[in-house]
Parts: sequence; C-alpha cells; structure tokens
Amino acid sequence: VEIAARLRELLGPDAVLTEADVIAPYLTDYRGNYRGAAAAVVQPDQTASVSKLLAWCNEHRIPVVPHGGNTSYCGGATPSEDGKSIVLSLHKLNRIRQVDSANFAIVAEAGCTLATVQTAATEAARFFPLSLGSEGSCQIGGNLATNAGGTAVLRYGMMRDLTLGIEAVLADGAVYSQLAPLRKDNTGYDLKNLLIGSEGTLGVITAACLRLFPAPRHIATAWLALPSPAAAIALLALLREASADRLSSCELVPRVALELVCTHISQAREPQLAPSPWYALVELSDSHSDAIQGTLTNALATAMQQGLVTDVVIAQSVAQRDNLWLIRESVPEAQRRAGASLKHDLAVPVARIPELLARGTALAEQLVPEGFVIAYGHVGDGNLHFNVNQRQDADAEEFKACEAPLKRVLHDLVAELQGSFSAEHGIGQLKLGELERYASAAKLQAMRQIKQALDPNGILNPGKVLR
Amino acid sequence: VEIAARLRELLGPDAVLTEADVIAPYLTDYRGNYRGAAAAVVQPDQTASVSKLLAWCNEHRIPVVPHGGNTSYCGGATPSEDGKSIVLSLHKLNRIRQVDSANFAIVAEAGCTLATVQTAATEAARFFPLSLGSEGSCQIGGNLATNAGGTAVLRYGMMRDLTLGIEAVLADGAVYSQLAPLRKDNTGYDLKNLLIGSEGTLGVITAACLRLFPAPRHIATAWLALPSPAAAIALLALLREASADRLSSCELVPRVALELVCTHISQAREPQLAPSPWYALVELSDSHSDAIQGTLTNALATAMQQGLVTDVVIAQSVAQRDNLWLIRESVPEAQRRAGASLKHDLAVPVARIPELLARGTALAEQLVPEGFVIAYGHVGDGNLHFNVNQRQDADAEEFKACEAPLKRVLHDLVAELQGSFSAEHGIGQLKLGELERYASAAKLQAMRQIKQALDPNGILNPGKVLR
Repeated sequence: VEIAARLRELLGPDAVLTEADVIAPYLTDYRGNYRGAAAAVVQPDQTASVSKLLAWCNEHRIPVVPHGGNTSYCGGATPSEDGKSIVLSLHKLNRIRQVDSANFAIVAEAGCTLATVQTAATEAARFFPLSLGSEGSCQIGGNLATNAGGTAVLRYGMMRDLTLGIEAVLADGAVYSQLAPLRKDNTGYDLKNLLIGSEGTLGVITAACLRLFPAPRHIATAWLALPSPAAAIALLALLREASADRLSSCELVPRVALELVCTHISQAREPQLAPSPWYALVELSDSHSDAIQGTLTNALATAMQQGLVTDVVIAQSVAQRDNLWLIRESVPEAQRRAGASLKHDLAVPVARIPELLARGTALAEQLVPEGFVIAYGHVGDGNLHFNVNQRQDADAEEFKACEAPLKRVLHDLVAELQGSFSAEHGIGQLKLGELERYASAAKLQAMRQIKQALDPNGILNPGKVLR
Repeated sequence: VEIAARLRELLGPDAVLTEADVIAPYLTDYRGNYRGAAAAVVQPDQTASVSKLLAWCNEHRIPVVPHGGNTSYCGGATPSEDGKSIVLSLHKLNRIRQVDSANFAIVAEAGCTLATVQTAATEAARFFPLSLGSEGSCQIGGNLATNAGGTAVLRYGMMRDLTLGIEAVLADGAVYSQLAPLRKDNTGYDLKNLLIGSEGTLGVITAACLRLFPAPRHIATAWLALPSPAAAIALLALLREASADRLSSCELVPRVALELVCTHISQAREPQLAPSPWYALVELSDSHSDAIQGTLTNALATAMQQGLVTDVVIAQSVAQRDNLWLIRESVPEAQRRAGASLKHDLAVPVARIPELLARGTALAEQLVPEGFVIAYGHVGDGNLHFNVNQRQDADAEEFKACEAPLKRVLHDLVAELQGSFSAEHGIGQLKLGELERYASAAKLQAMRQIKQALDPNGILNPGKVLR
C-alpha cells in the first residue's frame, strides 16, 4: 500500500492500479500457464514517467516487469508470485510519433499494436512487413523485446532487421534515445540490438524508429503439392533466384495439418489438387510490375519439370488468396480444437529441415504413441513449429507425461543439427533451463556480465532470460 | 624480449615476429597518420591459439591490438606508442571453412580478404554483396570489427546485416561460437551484434557465417543529370518503388567531382550528356529477368516527365558500365591528385541530404576560403563523403588550420540534423573526442559498463572507441 502511494505521488493517481480485479489480467499470461502477483500495475503515458519510475525502483530495489500485449508464449511478461514486483504496462504510450514517407520510416511508441503500425504505414503508401497471428493485440514494445518473427522473415527479416533506432529507459532511469531514420551510423557499441530481444531484462524500450518499404501492389500466391520436404528446400532456392528475392513467404504444411483445418475450420475450402504428403504456400510480391504473376507461373513450370512440385493452384482472386492464407493461419486453431498438444519452436539451417522432420518424427512416434506429429511453418527461414497432438482415444495423463522427455530429445536433436530451441518465441521463464543447458559457458558468462553491468540491482524483469 | 620468448613457447616460434623491419608495417596505418610500437606481432593460424594468447595476456595485463588488412581510416588497428602492446595479426586465419550454397551462406575466417569471400561466393553461383574500394586488401575480421558499408548498403545492408553468426575469442580466452547459418534464433542476448562494430575492444572475431544471395545475372546501369540533390531524393523513392527494391546503388556525384576525375584519371571517359550541377549513378540488378533494363528505362522516363532527371545515359555494354563505375570510384583518387583535402564521413536521414549539402557547403565556403567542396557518396543510405579540397593557389598552412574548426561546424550541423559524424568509418582513435562530445551520457555510460564487464583488465585494443 505504501508503495502504491509513493507511485501515485511520482506518476500521478491515474497511472497506478491496485484493485485486485483491475490488475488480475496483468498477472497471468494469455495461455494461462503462469500466474503471479504484484504490488501495483503502473501505466505511464510518457517516457519521462518511465524514467522516473525506474530511477525510483532502482533506488529501492523494486523489481519491474514490462508488459505489452501479453501474448508471450514463454511467460515473459508475468511477474513472480512473491508480490514484490511492479508491472509496467506500456499500453498508454501508444502514439505514432511520425510517419516519414520520404525516409521510408515510422516512429511508434511501445504501446502501439502491430496492426496500428501496419495501418499507419499503408495509409502513407508504404509497407511495414512484420506479420504475426497476434498482430491485432501484440504491441511494438513486445515485438522489440522478443525480436518477433512471423511469415515475412524470409524476405524482410525479423523485428531486429526492421528497426532503425530505439528509445529506451535503462535501469537507473537514464534515457537512451536514437530515433532518427539513419541507415548508417558507426559510432560506438550497438546498444539497439543488445536491447532488442533482451525481453526487458536490460532496459525498457519506449519507442522505435522502424523501416518501411515500398507497398506491394502486385501479389502472386500459389498452393503447391510437393513430394517431400527436400523438394521444398530445392524449390525455395529456385524461387529466390527466379524472382530476384521477391519471394515473401514459403510455408510448409503437411497433409495432416490440411486435413485438420478442413475438419475444424468451416470457412476454409480445400484447394483442388491431387492428394500429397506435403504442401507449400508460396507468395511473390512486387511494388510495381504485374509481371510477378508470370514470374511465378514460369518458375513453377520449371519446378514441375524438375519433379519438385507435382500439382499447383495459383490464386486467381483476392478471395482465393485469402482462403490459402486462412488455411495456413488456421493450423494452430485447428490443432487446438483437435485436442491437447506439445509444442516446440525449432529452427535449423534451412537445408537441414528434411533431416529435422525425418528424425524428429521418428523420435516423437517412438516416445509418444498417444500422439501424432504436426510439423509446419516457415521453411523459408528454417523455422518449424514441431507439434505433437494427442490422439482422440489416448490417455491424457500418459500424453502429458511425455512432454518433458519429448522436449529433451527434440532439443538435443536440434542442438546436433546446429539449430535453435527457440526460433522466435524467446526464453521468458519457460525456457530458462533450456538456455542454461544448451548455451555455451562463454555465452552464458558474457550474458551474465552484461546483465550485472547494466542492471546491477537486478530490478529489470528478474527471473526472465537469466536466473 | 622476455614477452616474445613466452609467446614463442605459447604459440610456436613461427607465430611470433619481433624484428624491427618485419614488424614496422604493423605499427602504422596505411594513410600514415598514426605510428605506434609493440612488444611483438603474433600471427596465429587457428582460433585455439588466439584463445591461448588472450588468456595469457589477460592474466598478465598485456594489451592486444587486433590487426586485419590495415585499411582503417581512424587508426583503429595501430598500437599506442608505449611499446607494451602485442599486435595480433589475423592474416593466417584465412580459410574459407565452408561454402553452403543450399543455405545461402559461407563461413570465412577473419583473415580472408573481402575479395576472397566475393570470389568464393561467385564460384558457387551465389553473391556476397559487400563492396568497398579496399576489397582486395581489407579483411573480413576488419569488416566485422568496423561494421563496414560500401556501395550496396541501400539494397543489402551493412556487414552487420550480412552476418548470420560469428566465432569470437573473449578477453579471458573463452571462445564464443555460433557459425551455423541460422535465420532465426531467439535464445539470449545478441552477442553477435555487440561484437560487430566494437572495433576489437570487446573480443576478437576469428570467423563468421555470412549471408549469400542469388547471383545478379542482369544489371541495368545509368548515369543521370539532375537539377538538384532534392531531385535525387525523389528519384530514389521512385526507383525503389518502380523496381520492387531491386535498386542496388544510388550514388550522387557533383559536377566538380566529375571534372576532377576527367582531369586526373586518364582512363575515365566523360558520359555524353548535357552539363549539369549534379549527377547520379543508379543501378538495378536481377538474378533472373532481363526485363530489368526495361524497368529502368520506364522509371527514368517517368522521372524525366517529373523534372527529376534532365538527361540520361544508359550503359549499353559491360565496358560502358565499367566506365561509369570507374568515374564514381575514382573520385577519391582524383581528389588526392588534386591536392590536400579535409574529409568527413557524414550520414543524415536520406531526406535531409539536400539540407546537409546546402548548409554544409555555405559553412565550408565561409570557413575555408582556401578550399572548395566535393561532397559525394551513397545518397541511397544518407551517407555523404563531405570533403573540402585545397585550391591550387592556396596557402597549405592556412588550409590545414581550418581542419579543426570545419570539423566542428560540420559535426554540429550533422548532430542538429539527427545524423552521424561517422557513417561507416567507425571511431578508432581518430574520433574518440567526437564520440565523447556527441554521444549522450546514457549511451557513453552503458558503453563503459559493457566494456568494463567484458574486458575488466582493459587488454582489448585499449584507447580505441573508449578512452
């Protein structure tokens, strides 16, 4: 209570929430896997208030948990259970400060939703390419804190690659600010990239200058039948070359995922092509030339001659394109309706995807007889959501008991293939142990040294990323 | 002498050089602006030896100065004068470890020249886009340490953007290694980007996994006459949109630079178009479609209708293209032959280039009556080499005396325009004072905390980047 009173003095009465039912949504993650407690939730509406807050918390050794759209898969924004933390919600820091069309840049505050930024870019005849299932609710601050990925990484990169500069408050309240749309600046250490992906443990990002691109005006989308994942890898290289890297997406979908979607998602219509063990959704886009459709048609003809593709549907209308994307984006929901699942966010070098699929599937079938594998995702950047769903007649307890051993063998396999056990979801609190197990001693020591140096009192999102 | 004997025990006799005439080239920079001394020069041929060296130097508090192709403009690889340092030359760590065509990646050791990496990529029908004047002698380790730029940044980014992973030896000899061609990996802090651009002050990068691209097979190049720098900015946006970001270069050249090149570089032939105050060299490239020439022609027709371009020469042969690039790349040499010059590596947001040119030129003409302005460079990414050359009849002493005051007003102007006083050349020892002057207190403090944390004994390239 005393803390709340002091915070009200510091930030004004409207910025501090303490009533149990009001703060409850800030104390659990949206999947309901974590539950914590907090002395208060604060919702400042300007960077100066965040600075005041951190300086005060640093002085009094009070933990601060930054909170965005609360869509973390890893409990990254949920406080611990001891009730000593303050949850720092950025949702009122939600202004688009500038849309700078000439510099292909936009400055947005941390609390803007991703969809808000996409829309602001579109209204200026530009394009912000980050695209995620949760784009209506996830916030730019969280996208930055976790270096978010999504379906356009192949062409445009991750959030890190889309960021020209940031404004952030450091542990002692100092404000680091570089929000100019500079394409080149070699003046000292790269604090921007150190803070991006640090999940709020090294500083609180309050705004960012993001890169925009020419708006894609012509889009060519196809649903393909493929004989194997290896064919998808060869197809990827072929399409990159044939399109001069205008390939925006290359998503791999197994037959079982398509069947689940057609069963559970009533709006989805199955594309009319021969049954196949694997499918791919590919998309080219161009800001100017409508020749992109011909480019795709020609490249796919070559791919068929080479046996990489056995059948093709090219979208002939926006409605057809939307249906293809609906199928791809409904896989998680269809999977949820089909029952419990064990999820893994894996990445390997692109060319090792076939080996990951073959060996991972064999391991899962052996270890989890109660489940079946649904592995799909962003083959263009080596990132597969490798999930195992519970069979309808299987025992739920037995299935759940497989979670830990399955995770171990899959993460061991990924390590052997030089991959990552967290391609785009980050560490949060869920994967602390995995990081300690798979990161080298050199990496862990350097990370701990940096954390100690920039947050000596350990107030920034404690218990996330590092223990 | 004792140090050299201990180093020979540690690394083998061939790895240690001490004779004055043999080590002399390692003790000065290639422009001859800095001169230092060293207890020894070591040239290990494997990462394990670099690790042994740093562990020993850390224990004995002996400074280590990493040394690549020695092409720094800022004295970044030259030791101090006290003779206590060891120069660590990476030139024997020069293997291409792997060319991975399927994953669009190459693993190269730090001592490979940039040209070696470009060639290895080309032989695998891929493309490594970093391109610099010094590419025959500069080394990958130096490109990484300084986050090198060059003429293709507009489309492909800087060295940072081209790097998938690194292997580096930290101050205590620990080896951090992540050389897999992973496109996605969100497992902990971004040590890769922290080390890239840190100029050897946080660790010694020994190898890197670099991104490759589809080889450009069709290239369209043009030399344009422009009424103003503002027209170049509008043209840039027009070309990016019209080509779906297949614009690889957009270089701005003032008439005075063209005249200097035609006077001093005998091989260069002046393009046949109407005299103009400004010119631009633009280039589109495509890995597949020869329609790129038509794309350029159409876009330039639009630009002429809009008054952005007043005359055009499109290269009709490889020889004509080579001549256009020779003009652009000979500007520094023509300038050198024309006499002494004061150089500045400035960047501003792209759309502020006209203001930088107008105000910077007025300031220079007022402050340096003995000189004339030659400002040219990578307009596509806001980076101008803003140089002032001595007039033929001017007093050399008076001209040289203008160096410090001119630097101050130009760097003040750039700060006002939210730009950078070091776009691609880094800090080294030349710009230590500028960094202290223009960086915020928050940035400097965070940098010092990180340096102290990762190199507590201060052995890594002391006196560079930070004092």
